Order: sequence, then structure tokens, then C-alpha cells
Amino acid sequence: MPDRLIGQLAAIVGADQVIAEPAAMQPWLTDWRGRYRGAARCVVRPGTRAEVAAVVAACAAVCAPLVPQGGNTSLCGAATPDASGSAVVLALGRLNRILAVDPVNDTITVEAGCTLAAVQEAARAAGRLFPLALAAEGSCQIGGNLSTNAGGVQVLRYGNARELTLGLEVVLADGTLWNGLRGLRKDNTGYDLKQLFIGAEGTLGVITAAVLKLFALPPTQTACWLNVATPAVAVDLLRRAKEHFDAQLTAFELISETALALVLQHIPGSRRPGAASPWYVLAEFSGAAPVAVEAWLAACLGAGIIADGVLARSESQARQLWALRENISEAQKIEGLSIKHDIAVPLSAIPDFLTQADAALTAAFPGVRIVAFGHVGDGNLHYNLSHSADNAAFIARQPEVHRRVHDIAHALAGTISAEHGLGQLKREEILRYKSAEEMALMRAIKQALDPRGLMNPGKLL
Amino acid sequence: MPDRLIGQLAAIVGADQVIAEPAAMQPWLTDWRGRYRGAARCVVRPGTRAEVAAVVAACAAVCAPLVPQGGNTSLCGAATPDASGSAVVLALGRLNRILAVDPVNDTITVEAGCTLAAVQEAARAAGRLFPLALAAEGSCQIGGNLSTNAGGVQVLRYGNARELTLGLEVVLADGTLWNGLRGLRKDNTGYDLKQLFIGAEGTLGVITAAVLKLFALPPTQTACWLNVATPAVAVDLLRRAKEHFDAQLTAFELISETALALVLQHIPGSRRPGAASPWYVLAEFSGAAPVAVEAWLAACLGAGIIADGVLARSESQARQLWALRENISEAQKIEGLSIKHDIAVPLSAIPDFLTQADAALTAAFPGVRIVAFGHVGDGNLHYNLSHSADNAAFIARQPEVHRRVHDIAHALAGTISAEHGLGQLKREEILRYKSAEEMALMRAIKQALDPRGLMNPGKLL
Repeated sequence: MPDRLIGQLAAIVGADQVIAEPAAMQPWLTDWRGRYRGAARCVVRPGTRAEVAAVVAACAAVCAPLVPQGGNTSLCGAATPDASGSAVVLALGRLNRILAVDPVNDTITVEAGCTLAAVQEAARAAGRLFPLALAAEGSCQIGGNLSTNAGGVQVLRYGNARELTLGLEVVLADGTLWNGLRGLRKDNTGYDLKQLFIGAEGTLGVITAAVLKLFALPPTQTACWLNVATPAVAVDLLRRAKEHFDAQLTAFELISETALALVLQHIPGSRRPGAASPWYVLAEFSGAAPVAVEAWLAACLGAGIIADGVLARSESQARQLWALRENISEAQKIEGLSIKHDIAVPLSAIPDFLTQADAALTAAFPGVRIVAFGHVGDGNLHYNLSHSADNAAFIARQPEVHRRVHDIAHALAGTISAEHGLGQLKREEILRYKSAEEMALMRAIKQALDPRGLMNPGKLL
Repeated sequence: MPDRLIGQLAAIVGADQVIAEPAAMQPWLTDWRGRYRGAARCVVRPGTRAEVAAVVAACAAVCAPLVPQGGNTSLCGAATPDASGSAVVLALGRLNRILAVDPVNDTITVEAGCTLAAVQEAARAAGRLFPLALAAEGSCQIGGNLSTNAGGVQVLRYGNARELTLGLEVVLADGTLWNGLRGLRKDNTGYDLKQLFIGAEGTLGVITAAVLKLFALPPTQTACWLNVATPAVAVDLLRRAKEHFDAQLTAFELISETALALVLQHIPGSRRPGAASPWYVLAEFSGAAPVAVEAWLAACLGAGIIADGVLARSESQARQLWALRENISEAQKIEGLSIKHDIAVPLSAIPDFLTQADAALTAAFPGVRIVAFGHVGDGNLHYNLSHSADNAAFIARQPEVHRRVHDIAHALAGTISAEHGLGQLKREEILRYKSAEEMALMRAIKQALDPRGLMNPGKLL
């Protein structure tokens, strides 16, 4: 019997934009890490925002669950349907228009399916900066970035995706299109509805377009690689850098020697920037005179806060320093499987987190190898673990490992997901850490906006 | 018959903290502008957050409506009960503890009843900056600032109250205490619930405490007063200043000659800073070398963008320049009644707004006097009107005047309330401008969190 919904969807978006053949659907049915695999009734690729609204309404009419999917780069399985095969995957990649750039208002209006790189590029073409930047920027889509409140390396200065958003357009669970595409810095006329959909992982509606903030392109950028003895010294250095450079400090990444060593081992062309040290900081200053950065570094060296420092003398040198940071994930992948974490704690608790987690894991799993790095300027660490002897056995104990790390982050008033979201991966785990009151509030919101539970079911909640 | 609820509230907070005698309640029953006057069953002044929860639960049990009140400085009647006398006014001023300052995490944790000035001071005592600043800071309370998403003069650099908030504690409509007092820069573990309560004007719950962001104290601040021919030139100058100084530009206020003239006339000790001009900009640069500001101003003068400029040579000179801006409201008050607006439009639409509004009002109300000024860096103008001949007759036409101004702002993709909220004042007016979809979404949220409509009834919705 033909699937009547598929016929309706084909009438909305065109027959060639509805994919129902199992083999052809595969690219949309697994996440890029290959950890989740699902099934779908069909994949539908609307070409306009009105088509999205019509698709959602058609699905709502027959109670068909919907899984919105952008660039499919979720690290938590947030865009992969479950195995039931009942869901329609709503692929948003054809909504890829830059709708407007207003360099005076410092805003850009984009459709949800624009890649992050396309948004960055459109801003740059207008002489402005869109500062959201992360490893997947070539393929992730801005709708997904907003639905997961993406972070990245410049949050310290410019904030998360949430702080970069002035307006949204969203298709609600019943197919209603809510146009909140405002480009205002100040607007206090009721509940700030866009905040509900940012970071909701598609469980409350489908983001179809957004108005985003733009900034001045920094006239200068100075990167430096600094040797620090301990994470506590890194946190102290961060405080000093903020004190001295304020918003001109635009990145502050912590990297352990174990992380650097993996990059040097596995990424061709990588070179150690200076002397070895247990820990490094990669800091970037934007708009500050390079001589001012140099003078400040000299003072930090003189005071014994940093043991050594390399200041990039050219753009290509800066790129080399950044490549050391950006290739950590790739190097880890080459090395083998690891158990990953995306925790955040208050900045003041970073040294304690590392001390406690290192001790607990080394005691529980002798021979564990700890690769710690991350956006220490935001209190966000990627704390990744593997085993030097029997890695397969270690990986099999993943739930136990997560539990220890997450318990320590939580005890330090931290979070188990700083920038990757919950998706399927941490949907159960979060129940251990969120209060009953908070879960009840979240469910009340879900119930209010999607009473039949059709929007991205099985994710986040 | 004694009021049983009052007895219960007295048992929770102590008999001396429940005020039920009509004359004694007066200070809580009118707004500071004296435009709204209400009645109450009683005023209750809890001393702890647990007492707030118990008070809300006791009121919920008997379906008594609650009106939360901070410093009672609302400009829209948001904290004044209606005339029915059924509401309990929940005065939060005794919750005035600074709970924690973490200078490494750059956060301060405060109770809702702390005055904004007390929060600023506690931050400064720890060598940090809490940047929210507005005229009422000596008496307004931080809970009210968050409930109205307060703006002020530094939004350009640091954002609204919303952007300064990392965590909240809220007592929900049924008396449940939700503890979301997190101090994290990144946390993506579900819906960002705090965003619901910020700017909700107490209609979804009572904010009892917050974790707020702190910043480095600027090492230098340079204020200057610049003569510009038109608002369009001011907007162009803003673009250039952001381009050149980025985040070091911390304020950018537009002031019309009519506004300055009122200050010079009514505020003793005021002096014209330089030559007269139809429009002025008061700009402030923080952390930039004064010589860099001076060089940039010289270039702007040389290029004919500004006609004249005064750079403050001392802190007292800077204070004098700022006093000219800050005394506009006071000078207007002395001059007489006026019809006020708090609109925002995209920055690129500011010149059009002023041209269109000036033309429409002059045509409709010959002899109207227009006093325009505001936070042009955020697209936010206070556009205040009076009449040179028959002001009383003009004031009587307030609804008609509002309508014309708001229609123009709306047509330019703007808002009718940039930073003051809706309260009672604009609750009806907003229905003209918000879409049916948006109002339905707002009502769905209200229904989900306060199904019996007990939280600050008659405000916002």
C-alpha cells in the first residue's frame, strides 16, 4: 500500500525531494561518528520556509514524528532518528539563502540550512565578523548551531550561539510559522520566545531562519603559545589577561602535554613550538597592538608565571599554533577509541576538577591515559580517556567512566554537557544531575509547545 | 472576620513583616511616577528565600494573586497591584544579601532584593565591574532589573540584564523553589529555563537570587561630547567608532539640542560644553588610550564628520558631560508633563524613524515640542513630546500620540518597548503589534507555568 503521507510531502516539496528508498536514506540515518543508527519513514528536503511549515503541518495531521537535521554533525546523536522507522527526517540543507546583511545594524539574516562557513563568509564579504567558529564549520548548519547553542573557541569574547542571536523564525509543532526575525538589541515586550528554541535540539519546533549579530573585523590578531606548570597557573594567567586586555582577549585554550604529544605523533608537519611543559595555553588577542602583547608576556615571564612563550610572528605561524589545538580530536581518532567528556565548571574550580578527576580515574583504572584540553576561558574542558594497555576493555567500561567524571564535575557546581548538548547520548545521564523541579519545568514547556511529543522524540527529554 | 491568609503569612515571616493596615500599605500601592494606584490584601516582606517559597505556597493554596515588588521603580506600572484589593504584594527588599563573589570565575551571587548600587559596589570592592547602570540604581533592586531585563547606558558593550545573568533561583507559582544558581559560561543540558523568567515581569514566578557576570574594571575611561549635524551622521559615526575601537566603545548616546536646552534651562550648574549644534553624541571609550581617542576624533573632525568635539580632560569634566545626559529626564519633569516613548529600531532605521516621526507629529500636532535622546548604540530612543502652547490639551491626546509613534517604529521593524517592559502601560497596546502566533505562544507559556494566573495578574499579558 502506498504511504499516503509520502505522497502529500511529495506534493509539497516535489517528488525528487522526498527520499523513501532505504538505501538512499542511509546518509541521514546515522550520525557522523557512526555511533547511532536509525530508520525513517522518509527523508524530506523542503526548499522554502513555507514548505517547511507545510511539511510539519502534514506530519502533525497524521501524528508522524519529525527529526530535524542540519549538517548532521551532532556529537550526541541529536539528529539521528530512532530505530522504529516511524519518523520523517526533515533535512534543512536546501534552506541555504543569506536573506540580508545590514552592516549598519551589524546583523545578518540567514536561513537555517546555511553552513556556518557560508554565514562567516557572507559577513566577511560585507566587511564584518560573524564570530561563531568551530571545527565542523564547513558542514554544520546554522539552524543546528542554534538548536544546540553551539560554543567554540571565541565564546570568551563573543558568547555562545545564543548570545549571537537577535531574532528567529520557527515552525511550531502544529505547522504554525512564528516570525520572530527581529534585529533589535533591545526589545522588552513579553517573554523572549526565541530563547526557548535556542538549545532545544529541535524538540520544541524547527528553526527556519535567524537574525544574527555581526562585529567589527579585528584589525590585528596575535596568537601565542605559553608554557604553564599547572592548570591553576593557567587560570591565574587567564585572570591577568582579562584584567589587562579585557575584550581584546579573544581565545584562551588549555592543552596538556599528552594532547600535544598525540598531535605531534599523528599529524604530519606538526612541530613542537618551544620547550616541553606539562601544560600549555594558546591565547589569542584581537585588536591589541602586538607590542603590547609582547610586553605583557615579558612581564609574565619575568614574574615566573609562564616558563616559556612563543608569539606568532606571522599569520602562517599563528595558523601553525592553532593547528596544534584544532588537530587534537583528529590525532585522538587516529590513535584509537577514547571516552570523551564535555564538562564545564566555574573557572575557579578547574584546578580542583583536574586534580580530583585525575586521581579518581588513575585509582579506578590504573594505566588510564588522560588527554585534557579545552576552552578554559569558558570553564569548558574536553577530558578524554583511553588506556595504554587494554583499551578495548577500558572502552567497554564507558558508563562507569562517565559516571566518575560527571559526578566530580557536578560536585564542583559544573555541568556534564557544556557545548555538545544532550541528544540521545546524555538524555538518561542528565536525570542524575538535574533536580526534579528542573525536569518538571522542562517537561511543562515541552508539553505546552509540543503536547503530542512529535518534535525530535527521544532527544534531550 | 480576621483574614486567615494574613495570619498564615504572619506565621511565616513574623507579624511585623505583614502590613495590612490601608494607610501603612500606601507606599507599595502606587508607582513612583504616581500614574497607577492599586489596593492590596496585605504587603508581606519575607526575610529569606525559604520564606518567599512558603509565602507563595500559602497564597497559592487559597488562590490569592501575588504582585512581586522590588524597588518599585517601574516606568510601566509593573509592580503596582490592581484596584481589586485581592492581591498580596510580595516586597523583596529584605532579601538583600550578597551571597558570594568569585573574582576568578568573574561572578557575583546576590539575593533579589539587593539594590543595583549595592551589587555594583560589592563587585567594585572585589576589584571587578558589574556593568548594569541606570538612573534608578540607588533604589531599584536586582530582582526587578532581571524581571524587566533592564538596559541602560552600557548595553552597547556589556548587553542587557539578560546577557549578564548566568544563573537564577526562582519561586514558581505553586511555591516550588527552583535552584538554577549556576555560574557557568557554557551549559547545554536542556531548555535554558532562566531565560523564561528574565523579562517576564514576575508573571511566571518570583526571582529570589541570581548569579551575575563580572568584568575587569576599565583602566581608563574617556568621555567626549561631539557635535553632529544629523542623526544619520551620528549613526555613521557609531559605525566608525565600533570599527576603530570595537569593545572599547562602551557608550554612545544621542542628544538633541532641544533636550540639551531643557537641561541648561532647568538644572543649576549645567553648562554648554561647546558650540551649539542640532544634535550631539556623548561617547565613552574604556581601556583605550586617551591619545588614541584624541587622534581618532581629530581624524573625524578633519573629515568633516563631526563639527566640534570636547574631550573630557578629567574625571570631573567627564562627570559634567554625563550629567547633561542623565539630567534630561529631571529637566523634562521640571518643565512639565510630557508624553514619553521607549522605542527601538534597527540602527540603520534610526534616521528614518526620526524623520518620519518628526514629520507625522508636526503635521498632526502643530506646535509640538520634540525632545529626542537615547541609547542610539542600541537603536533605543526616548522620544518625548510636549506642547509649547497648550500642553494640557496635548497630553490629553496621549493615546493618539502613542499610536502614531509606535506605528512608525513598528513599520521600521522596531519595538514599542525597548527597555521599560509592558507592565500595565503597554499591555493592550502590544496586541496591535505582536502577531497572533506570538501572543498564543506567550499565553501557552503562561498557562504552563502559572495555570491559575496568580503571578502578577494584569501585567504583560
